[in-house]
Amino acid sequence: MNPYTIFGDIIAGRAAASRVYEDDDVLAFMDIRPMTPGHVLVVPKVVARSLAELDPVVGGKLFQVGQRVAAALRVSEVGCDGVNFFLADGVTAGQEVFHVHLHVIPRTPGDGFGLRGRPTSPRRADLDYLAGSIRGALSR
Amino acid sequence: MNPYTIFGDIIAGRAAASRVYEDDDVLAFMDIRPMTPGHVLVVPKVVARSLAELDPVVGGKLFQVGQRVAAALRVSEVGCDGVNFFLADGVTAGQEVFHVHLHVIPRTPGDGFGLRGRPTSPRRADLDYLAGSIRGALSR
Repeated sequence: MNPYTIFGDIIAGRAAASRVYEDDDVLAFMDIRPMTPGHVLVVPKVVARSLAELDPVVGGKLFQVGQRVAAALRVSEVGCDGVNFFLADGVTAGQEVFHVHLHVIPRTPGDGFGLRGRPTSPRRADLDYLAGSIRGALSR
Repeated sequence: MNPYTIFGDIIAGRAAASRVYEDDDVLAFMDIRPMTPGHVLVVPKVVARSLAELDPVVGGKLFQVGQRVAAALRVSEVGCDGVNFFLADGVTAGQEVFHVHLHVIPRTPGDGFGLRGRPTSPRRADLDYLAGSIRGALSR
């Protein structure tokens, strides 16, 4: 499969980006289609189309940079008082750029962002059944 | 502030939960109000009400366990073909339980889950301005 993505060009410096943070493994920059003002993307510098392809060491660093960005957003001129992390893994999950990216989305009251959908209240037996199946998959 | 949450009771074994995974630092269990079937919560065992209070080492582990759960969901009887991560930090971001938790939400076509809101297309100068402010906050 073609590993080309726009994020690869940004990492290589071939495409413009409003950069926020960079270290050996991780780059953070402004989303050009922000859900709210100050929306940041945190990406691994290595090519990884999916969570399954992403070295867990680098995955952990994405979260840590997300924590730092979340704190910075609050004291920056973005001036949010809450933050959401969001990540889409797979077309069905809404992934559009096939280079792993963690969304860090600043929140202010009435900003209109949120989740769509309705939670259900399954029986404990059904939760236990799925938990058992997931535990089995984890141990394989 | 009162550090009591229902997740603290689950971690301590005083409240029921359908457990999926456990190690020294992290516990994962089924959300009792799933957005889709198989919705898992990944939590630190230490008390941390917010991302700011969470040791980044443990934060990185949350993401790594999230990656493992995402892979397991796909091959378990949940049988999803995509996964979302979601995290709410602060009341304004929709946080309801004040113990950090990473949502791992299995996705299947037509499941009705997604994001609410509409992205905008700011000018590059505006993105650069916010990026500069966030960089400044990160360096303080």
